[in-house]
Amino acid sequence: MRVIVTGAASGIGRAIAERLLADGHQVVALDLRPVGLPGAECHALDQGDPASIDRVLSAIAGPLDGLVNSAGLPPRPGNEAQLLRVNLLGLKHLTEAVLDRLTPGGAVVTIASRAGHAWRENLTQARAALALGWHDDVAGFCAREGIDALRAYALSKEALILWTRQSAAPLIARDLRMNALCPAAVETPLLEDFARLQSAESIARNAARTARRGRVADIAPVAAFLLSPESGWIKGEALALDGGLSAMAECEALGL
Amino acid sequence: MRVIVTGAASGIGRAIAERLLADGHQVVALDLRPVGLPGAECHALDQGDPASIDRVLSAIAGPLDGLVNSAGLPPRPGNEAQLLRVNLLGLKHLTEAVLDRLTPGGAVVTIASRAGHAWRENLTQARAALALGWHDDVAGFCAREGIDALRAYALSKEALILWTRQSAAPLIARDLRMNALCPAAVETPLLEDFARLQSAESIARNAARTARRGRVADIAPVAAFLLSPESGWIKGEALALDGGLSAMAECEALGL
Repeated sequence: MRVIVTGAASGIGRAIAERLLADGHQVVALDLRPVGLPGAECHALDQGDPASIDRVLSAIAGPLDGLVNSAGLPPRPGNEAQLLRVNLLGLKHLTEAVLDRLTPGGAVVTIASRAGHAWRENLTQARAALALGWHDDVAGFCAREGIDALRAYALSKEALILWTRQSAAPLIARDLRMNALCPAAVETPLLEDFARLQSAESIARNAARTARRGRVADIAPVAAFLLSPESGWIKGEALALDGGLSAMAECEALGL
Repeated sequence: MRVIVTGAASGIGRAIAERLLADGHQVVALDLRPVGLPGAECHALDQGDPASIDRVLSAIAGPLDGLVNSAGLPPRPGNEAQLLRVNLLGLKHLTEAVLDRLTPGGAVVTIASRAGHAWRENLTQARAALALGWHDDVAGFCAREGIDALRAYALSKEALILWTRQSAAPLIARDLRMNALCPAAVETPLLEDFARLQSAESIARNAARTARRGRVADIAPVAAFLLSPESGWIKGEALALDGGLSAMAECEALGL
């Protein structure tokens, strides 16, 4: 397989790119920062800029069999609009262009998040976010909707899960498929950003419930599996990959 | 790995047992009918009879690393009570005994079904079914609740999904995990039983939406992956494995 991996310079994207290389696949590694991944074809990508996306894609020659969307900004006070542009608008822009080039049977795996679990409850806002285009006033949208950085992060993931669910039908007709992975806290550089904005109690409580934090090594093999033909009958799913946190939270919510 | 596979004589269970053998694992193959699977340790199991379950388990020596619950009855008019005994009471009885013997990191994969997708809506009845014991009047329960064969099948799968969700927390403490797979129609001998009881229109419509029916070859690699340490961070999940049917049905239900 020849697979594009975004966010390949660090964290989850890095681990997935390394895993795919170790499995003998060809990797096209994209990141805002230098990737420097031996064996991979590396390009600089600013996912918040449609011109950068178009430029990078035109520089990538040859067939493509898969895409892993791992690039994304963490929540930082004041970065709401830029976060939505990178995590949602840019991700969609890149993915739609790559889908047009994927070989039959090709697969997209998007790293969403457990932070997007309330996408059904927030459906109206998630649909509105999904409808935003490059020429829309994203900062004005955030201001009108009262969206702070943490909410922007969750909203970007909710919209990605909604978009993944909606992709099933149209992609079946094209012999392509898209799935999302929803990790909870994973030990990556981004974790510090969350630690600054979330309560220490809730972070400690979740780590205690799952016995430990998630690791990039927990995520990479599942992403590789969802790219592979072996998972070909899984389509339009948002799979929790969180050490049981979703199951435990749902049982609690249902009073079980 | 050394893995027990129930329902290994045919259909999904057979395909999973063959896949595990091909991957170099040891398989203990159980079924009511003769299994005759070269390379596997085979035992006759009546999953509707706790004495048979206990007898078989005491005949299996040595360590166990996993269990695949694939044995189950299809809906047939009049078989409601027996179906619940085999698909639910017997499956639980077997699983609880095997969990006590699994090596650390061990995994259980239960073949549930898309038929169990409404487990949250039917939570009260699913909890009641899950609470049934061998000495309870299961036929009386079915009569009181107005449960016909199709409903008994769906209820058994709803209860298994609920049970899987509830398993996350207690099994984390034991370094074990359980997940469920939820296929829609799969081309197996059981499909004829469903065709007799469901409308031809709904069957044809679903097959058209997913472009084809599911096949056992779609299921076996996913079951093998959920047994493997590579999926170790997935716990208490009920994963749709249905060619996108769940995603499409949810989008329809949400008016998307």
